[in-house]
Amino acid sequence: MKLKNDKQLKIILASGSPRRKELLKMIEIKDFAVIPDETEEIFALGLTPEQSVCKTALQKAKNVSKLCNPDDLIIAADTEVYLDGQHFGKPTDAQDAEDMLKRLSGRCHTVYTGLAIILGDDIITGAESTAVYFRELSDKEITNYVKTGEPMDKAGAYGVQGMGSVFIERLEGDFFNVMGLPVCRLTIMLRNLGVDI
Amino acid sequence: MKLKNDKQLKIILASGSPRRKELLKMIEIKDFAVIPDETEEIFALGLTPEQSVCKTALQKAKNVSKLCNPDDLIIAADTEVYLDGQHFGKPTDAQDAEDMLKRLSGRCHTVYTGLAIILGDDIITGAESTAVYFRELSDKEITNYVKTGEPMDKAGAYGVQGMGSVFIERLEGDFFNVMGLPVCRLTIMLRNLGVDI
Repeated sequence: MKLKNDKQLKIILASGSPRRKELLKMIEIKDFAVIPDETEEIFALGLTPEQSVCKTALQKAKNVSKLCNPDDLIIAADTEVYLDGQHFGKPTDAQDAEDMLKRLSGRCHTVYTGLAIILGDDIITGAESTAVYFRELSDKEITNYVKTGEPMDKAGAYGVQGMGSVFIERLEGDFFNVMGLPVCRLTIMLRNLGVDI
Repeated sequence: MKLKNDKQLKIILASGSPRRKELLKMIEIKDFAVIPDETEEIFALGLTPEQSVCKTALQKAKNVSKLCNPDDLIIAADTEVYLDGQHFGKPTDAQDAEDMLKRLSGRCHTVYTGLAIILGDDIITGAESTAVYFRELSDKEITNYVKTGEPMDKAGAYGVQGMGSVFIERLEGDFFNVMGLPVCRLTIMLRNLGVDI
């Protein structure tokens, strides 16, 4: 990828998520390095979910930028699931995954992703939210789903692009935001920084 | 896949679409045969888009069922794009693809998929619709996108799960419906027929 002045950019994805890597490749950003950052979610008092995911994404981007060259392009993201104002992280074990899925069953929850991009002295952030409507799930299908292992590394204990797809009646917003990387917003943010994508 | 009485089912997908094959595999339906049917879309006077896609899907399923055993499970689908009441099929050439994308730019269109399932004497159909909001596209990005070839085999001249993903600001409904197979509805329809999925 290049800046508008044709300067070649080195791109760093500050995330180890296989889904984010896949989505960058999907939008033809194929040449990038991965430096995961293990920053925990930041839930400061008084922050909205949007502010919280942006703050966390920015912290990840800043941490990783310290390991990079000053003119590298750093992309970081943080995705969180909220239901009734309560935050759902990744499940701690199979029982926790079952409990989360029982609470999401038949309800609408919201997925937030914060994006942070650092390019030299420029730092920008942005958040996207998507409403996800689950149909009613039976206890049996929850148990069977948890047994597949798919929920264990995912916020909210489901994969939107896997077997968890059959739980979702409808959504409102960006689908790829639920996968962890809102590609439409990312593209616009990169262009705002002068990147020729 | 099995019926509830443990009888093993032979599954036939009446579609050559690589995206539909991929989506069946995604929901763990891995053992199926493909028999494409080339039925053209049926646009009878007085039919709503939902009725039109169901009628076309049913015709595909019936055509393919004649080539199969009476107890095979046939799954057929038809996907169409509508804007302002006008139907958008697959583009005929690069210019047609550019024209379609210019019309979709900055607007909301609707994608309809009809599903038809035949299992012995049981025949069921169902339709799903999804509203898709495109951001404003520049002429340059439309031209560059058409050059990739991605639009050419797709209704509406874009791929929702490819480079076309960056055009979509938001959607309302089932994402997989836009890919050509609404997997949540399909699962419910199969269960209504007694299939143990």
